[in-house]
Amino acid sequence: MRLGPGDAVAAFNGHDGEWLGRIEAQEKRGATLRMERRLAPQPEESDLWLLFAPLKRGPGDLLVTKAVELGASALMPVMTARTSASRVRRERMRALAIEASEQCGRCDVPETREPVRLPELLDCWPGDRRLMFCDESGHGLPIADYLIEVRTDKIEMPRAVLIGPEGGFNEEERAMLRGQPFVVPVDLGPRLLRAETAAIAALVCWQAVIGDWRRADTAPVAATAARA
Amino acid sequence: MRLGPGDAVAAFNGHDGEWLGRIEAQEKRGATLRMERRLAPQPEESDLWLLFAPLKRGPGDLLVTKAVELGASALMPVMTARTSASRVRRERMRALAIEASEQCGRCDVPETREPVRLPELLDCWPGDRRLMFCDESGHGLPIADYLIEVRTDKIEMPRAVLIGPEGGFNEEERAMLRGQPFVVPVDLGPRLLRAETAAIAALVCWQAVIGDWRRADTAPVAATAARA
Repeated sequence: MRLGPGDAVAAFNGHDGEWLGRIEAQEKRGATLRMERRLAPQPEESDLWLLFAPLKRGPGDLLVTKAVELGASALMPVMTARTSASRVRRERMRALAIEASEQCGRCDVPETREPVRLPELLDCWPGDRRLMFCDESGHGLPIADYLIEVRTDKIEMPRAVLIGPEGGFNEEERAMLRGQPFVVPVDLGPRLLRAETAAIAALVCWQAVIGDWRRADTAPVAATAARA
Repeated sequence: MRLGPGDAVAAFNGHDGEWLGRIEAQEKRGATLRMERRLAPQPEESDLWLLFAPLKRGPGDLLVTKAVELGASALMPVMTARTSASRVRRERMRALAIEASEQCGRCDVPETREPVRLPELLDCWPGDRRLMFCDESGHGLPIADYLIEVRTDKIEMPRAVLIGPEGGFNEEERAMLRGQPFVVPVDLGPRLLRAETAAIAALVCWQAVIGDWRRADTAPVAATAARA
């Protein structure tokens, strides 16, 4: 930080909107701020979880950064049979998520969860949340077709996106996923997408078709009221 | 290349599909291949140009790689008032596009064009191609809303996407764009997207809603026939 006492900063805590603060005192790894006034109310953020098999450093960092930029509300690493990354550096993921939130002007930081194995994830799944499983087998519903249907039928429901590892899910995992009542297999077209591209693509489709990129009059009532 | 004479490779030229070839002779910067048989016919590729203000190296490389993966048919750098990159390394762009095409299993390489200034681009524009201009002013049509309309009305027309520089288009450029009969200003939601994210998002929306990610029965007749 190149700022010193008396300098102004914009601050957020994920609940109370964006604030104008001033640095009162600086410490080695932080500073004490005095809040002067609220610059903007807390925006209504999207409720969309991104579940992904951890990737190598470069693509993994890209996935986290872009997911924040595209409004994901939670980042959840899932260990699958073909996951190549042996561990998840959660501190790094959290630091990246904070940096990306600042960069894109979000007033919150998505939750970054502990990694969980796929079977446990499905066992503890909140049944009222739809899980869009990006299925590379070609048997899923085309993603926009599915989302346009949801939009047309005005089906309000929290959602999540699941992206497999570079090598894909294995047969057993695919069957396990397809057996869940809350799972919708979706398809991302005929090209071989890298895992991070697939994650970005699924988030974009969600935001564009049923998220906050659409026209206000097609948005859910609650969100419209919050923005008014 | 770690391969030697007699080894098999998959080859494509953008017209004749994917071929199984064998290395006959190796030279310093290449090899002579003998084609044995066709592995797959040339797939019908998308007709979508991506026009973008050149970016710095990292985000610029990402934009090119992902645009190839998402099926862009031409990559066209456009110089705008606020473009920060002073030159375009076209050879590098071409090399990246070839590498990305191989990686994602495309049987063609998108065209990589010489940079052109925005006014000249608009002067020479082929009037039958719609230009979706990603407008950060908030006055564009939400991108999915526009594309769903196009899909519902079955409006067949070649298209292009235009993304501005990090600093956005200036007022004069925006007015110039809005004055063209072939320009449709579209909106990419309330978050501040980086230029490369905006490019990826626009390509994803296009492919998902009216491109080849949708269900075959909603695809244009010609494309469906080609895949059958």
